Amino acid sequence: MLLGYLFDSCKKIKEHFLIDILYLKSMNIDEFVERSLGTWRSQRSAHHLAFHHFEEVTSQIEIRSLENTDARVIELCKTNQVDPHLVSSPFYMTWLGESDWDEDEVLSGSTVLVPVPDIENPTKGRLLREQGYAETIPAIGYYQLVEDGSFILNTQYDRATAEEKIWFATPNLRLRVSLIKTADGKGVTTASFSSEIRSLDLEN
Amino acid sequence: MLLGYLFDSCKKIKEHFLIDILYLKSMNIDEFVERSLGTWRSQRSAHHLAFHHFEEVTSQIEIRSLENTDARVIELCKTNQVDPHLVSSPFYMTWLGESDWDEDEVLSGSTVLVPVPDIENPTKGRLLREQGYAETIPAIGYYQLVEDGSFILNTQYDRATAEEKIWFATPNLRLRVSLIKTADGKGVTTASFSSEIRSLDLEN
Repeated sequence: MLLGYLFDSCKKIKEHFLIDILYLKSMNIDEFVERSLGTWRSQRSAHHLAFHHFEEVTSQIEIRSLENTDARVIELCKTNQVDPHLVSSPFYMTWLGESDWDEDEVLSGSTVLVPVPDIENPTKGRLLREQGYAETIPAIGYYQLVEDGSFILNTQYDRATAEEKIWFATPNLRLRVSLIKTADGKGVTTASFSSEIRSLDLEN
Repeated sequence: MLLGYLFDSCKKIKEHFLIDILYLKSMNIDEFVERSLGTWRSQRSAHHLAFHHFEEVTSQIEIRSLENTDARVIELCKTNQVDPHLVSSPFYMTWLGESDWDEDEVLSGSTVLVPVPDIENPTKGRLLREQGYAETIPAIGYYQLVEDGSFILNTQYDRATAEEKIWFATPNLRLRVSLIKTADGKGVTTASFSSEIRSLDLEN
């Protein structure tokens, strides 16, 4: 029914737009992680809204799949009291970046991320995280794969809420909008945008 | 049915996320334009992907509604052979900006924008434009309001395709991701992100 609606919606729209939408429609968490695997060169712009300040970060991101039975996955499940059999497509992420704000600061880190789809509705679920970008404590995010192909992730920390929206413009261009909100979720302090281009390994 | 599904999807997710999603769900073109009216201070970051180059633009944007009977609306309908009775919520937009790339360049302009919803499916339609950001010729864009509340606009120019995704993070924070694609729609040359904060007139 949805596909019929979609075709109907698009029939007057130019062909490339139709292809884009169809390409975006068919995502689930396994496909989303699968498409995200690899090495990415990222340009990130952060808008610090209260001060109208821009920050620019360039970084290299690596996303690698993990086995469900990996010790780090099992450990994270244990910490969060999650049955490891519910896990789907766990992965490992490392990043190494440079900010124009403080050139001496090296922004680097790594984390294990473990999706736990809801049994009743696999388009949403929890994302267990060993260590966040901004925090050094474990966090649980709530994700939802929406119908235009975006992955939306909400994570509540002690004094802030993070909302991320990630989608693919092409198979080799991943876009990410991140909002840092006040703890009550009503105000936005920072909005940032990343364009991540897949580094193709020309030797293989 | 959709709302039931939504409630079901969200019931385990924290309340603020539920509110956000419900807030985003109820958009149509008239509401979208209505929420966009006003004066906005914009921070825009452009990522020129081939060169990993960043460009920063700050600007002021004004969006004002127009009457359906406004001469500029009628003229634009005539040029595009559109029945003026099909028009919904036409508006006028002006911008004045500064780029960090060429500080002497003043980025300013104005345009009339005229939504023409499809009769069969009002969540999509055409957007007639007097003058584009990048081009000085009239253009017709194709829009679609998707279910997470985003407005997606595709415009094909002679040698490029523009795809814009606009949504509200809060009633006073509008976000916009713009992609400039090659004419065939397959490659992306520039990805840019704008955060637009409503300027509240404290005198009124």
